[in-house]
Amino acid sequence: IGVGMIGASLVQALRRSGFDKPIYGYDTVKIIDDVARNMSPLDSIDAVCEASHLIVLATPPGQFAECIRSLVPLWSDEKILTDVGSVKRPIIDAVATAFGKASPLFVPGHPIAGTEKSSAKAADAGLFEGATVILTPGKDSDKSATAAIAIVASLWEQVGGTVEYMDSDEHDYVFAAVSHLPHMLAYALVNCLVNEDGEVTHQFTGRSFRDYSRLASSDPTLWRDIGIANKDNLAPILKKYAAEIEHLIEALERGDGDGLRKYFARARQAREGSAQEGK
Amino acid sequence: IGVGMIGASLVQALRRSGFDKPIYGYDTVKIIDDVARNMSPLDSIDAVCEASHLIVLATPPGQFAECIRSLVPLWSDEKILTDVGSVKRPIIDAVATAFGKASPLFVPGHPIAGTEKSSAKAADAGLFEGATVILTPGKDSDKSATAAIAIVASLWEQVGGTVEYMDSDEHDYVFAAVSHLPHMLAYALVNCLVNEDGEVTHQFTGRSFRDYSRLASSDPTLWRDIGIANKDNLAPILKKYAAEIEHLIEALERGDGDGLRKYFARARQAREGSAQEGK
Repeated sequence: IGVGMIGASLVQALRRSGFDKPIYGYDTVKIIDDVARNMSPLDSIDAVCEASHLIVLATPPGQFAECIRSLVPLWSDEKILTDVGSVKRPIIDAVATAFGKASPLFVPGHPIAGTEKSSAKAADAGLFEGATVILTPGKDSDKSATAAIAIVASLWEQVGGTVEYMDSDEHDYVFAAVSHLPHMLAYALVNCLVNEDGEVTHQFTGRSFRDYSRLASSDPTLWRDIGIANKDNLAPILKKYAAEIEHLIEALERGDGDGLRKYFARARQAREGSAQEGK
Repeated sequence: IGVGMIGASLVQALRRSGFDKPIYGYDTVKIIDDVARNMSPLDSIDAVCEASHLIVLATPPGQFAECIRSLVPLWSDEKILTDVGSVKRPIIDAVATAFGKASPLFVPGHPIAGTEKSSAKAADAGLFEGATVILTPGKDSDKSATAAIAIVASLWEQVGGTVEYMDSDEHDYVFAAVSHLPHMLAYALVNCLVNEDGEVTHQFTGRSFRDYSRLASSDPTLWRDIGIANKDNLAPILKKYAAEIEHLIEALERGDGDGLRKYFARARQAREGSAQEGK
């Protein structure tokens, strides 16, 4: 459900991997031919839900709650629900609210594989090769829950991903810092440098600016949804970041060269440690 | 004078381009063999100054003023001075202060070709291929000044650069925004995420973080010097940036999804315009 960049890439990746079972899909816009020929486009969420055993929610996260509500009447116990959203707590709550006591087999997921591109036109059968895919299943450990987790894990392994498990709240806290924060900073950088006519005011944008503003080409609707969904983690880390900027401004205004050098050296050292160990 | 990443790359690039005249050099550390075999290392700034017609200052910018002072007693009218610094106003002032009325033929320069790497080990004979090199000569238009500009321009064209001319204060204002600001933001991002032991606290650093913190691997001494040299432009743009972050925090806390989407869309549109037109 939702055949944008991630959903369409999953279709292409599954087919390239040799997966030969039916894949049904629904999107509010017509699915492009390159992707449609590898699947069966249907004309409603209901139709996808009825036809499928494993349902992957891949809409923008702002539409998750409404999609989930429309799944409830058609649900049956053996179906498995997963998603590809960048924030886990809100979708877990939305599933709990919509399904109530009849909680479905739901395995929240997050393939760390997006780029600043959006839409099915950017579909890439190799997108998940070598990617980490995080699953944040609940504590329920009955047999069917365990089986559902294994099936969702095998979906991502089939397309080249490596599955890791995290607590959902820990996930949202970590990704506010390492992913959502950089996106906010990139949007802020570009807006800091545009004039009233919406043009970047400086002629020489150079490599630093280009690289550093790349994330600002990301889909505004997606990032509105992610920002709002994770605002309880994102606003505090942005405040912490603002305090770092304040510290830099003060050091510059004082002309505190030694303080600046130490500040920069600390960042370089930490960054080089994490670049080696990082995933 | 100063055979680090930029100085050493210039030596290698000149030799690769077929330049066959002597190149003399001095550095406070021993020049690595790969570079030294393409030049004549000398053991003092004085020796380089005496031997050379065109002198390229390529030390960290914090050492410019001292180097310039040591050039004064050995200077002669036909020598030409240029530099590779990222900030132009302070070196122009340093030359004026050191030389007084006996102002030398000085053509301030800035090859836009650095990376986060430093030291002669990162020398790259292709570093200036396709790079923009900005020269900010003064308004003096006598024959020898014009000839000096042409000689410095031909130096950079010889190694594949494209020369553009700017006013020095305009240069410093623009580069505060498009280069120095992103570096500060990268250092701040990493420091925002390190703990008291100097380690990045998050296990999943991902592509956004890696790309976005790349500039934080830049040389702390160089960036201390650049920050201090350009603090009159850099502190105000950092304040403007802090106001953007404040705006984002408020929109998140209000849950203003529509405001966020418009903010992000404005950045994306401006960024995509500049990426096409940008240099």
